[in-house]
Amino acid sequence: MKILVPVDGSNYCSAALQMAKDIAEKYEDSTLFLLNVQRRIVSRPNVNEFEISEFITDDPEVLNETGNIVLNKAKNCIEGTNVKVDACVKLGDPADQIIDTAERARVDMIVMGSLGATGVKRFLMGSVSTKVVNYSSIPVLVVKH
Amino acid sequence: MKILVPVDGSNYCSAALQMAKDIAEKYEDSTLFLLNVQRRIVSRPNVNEFEISEFITDDPEVLNETGNIVLNKAKNCIEGTNVKVDACVKLGDPADQIIDTAERARVDMIVMGSLGATGVKRFLMGSVSTKVVNYSSIPVLVVKH
Repeated sequence: MKILVPVDGSNYCSAALQMAKDIAEKYEDSTLFLLNVQRRIVSRPNVNEFEISEFITDDPEVLNETGNIVLNKAKNCIEGTNVKVDACVKLGDPADQIIDTAERARVDMIVMGSLGATGVKRFLMGSVSTKVVNYSSIPVLVVKH
Repeated sequence: MKILVPVDGSNYCSAALQMAKDIAEKYEDSTLFLLNVQRRIVSRPNVNEFEISEFITDDPEVLNETGNIVLNKAKNCIEGTNVKVDACVKLGDPADQIIDTAERARVDMIVMGSLGATGVKRFLMGSVSTKVVNYSSIPVLVVKH
């Protein structure tokens, strides 16, 4: 059983990761494939000489490094498992990268968290899990945070 | 592992049911809980002040019988499994009944199919799986048909 688990910076030891590990351990020759997607900020706020602005990086190297920190923390959460663990950082839209990576890696399942936001909050956030569920051809297990 | 699998009349031997069976068999003391939800068509023709009751067009007994036929066909698809199988028919809105039944039965996971419809089709159909994913507090595994 090959399971892709998207991991973001807000929740390394998510219920989704624990559930994915639990299922993977029940199968022989399982792999947990941890994926962190770093959004590349394309547009920047208007900066003029009077504004002291925080500079949001879109430097791939910095983003990769940030992603690897997140992935290492996630790996620590599942330390001691007998399951093979792979990890990878991608840059771009989270839902697109999750679906694309899952298909290329031919995983059997995607296990991901969801904030379970409703109404306006969900609308404003644009739920990554909803997009993945709607457009992935691979089974998706959504676990609420 | 207690898994709820909604079964509808269009696909008894769904990929979702097979995947649920596969996962359940990996755990000890598993139960597959098959659920068929029959929509009760409630219409209120010519409502005026003298009409006090909703006009229900479907007979619950007939709906129950129809649901049990669907469930028996689904049971045939997983014949030979060593997993305990329960089955139940509910009447009402499919997503509401799926979430409510899953919570009352304290299942560990809901495994359900999705047509994977997009755009206008999804809008018109109102995706049951999307509603369940959004509002269920229990993990939901969505498997495309």
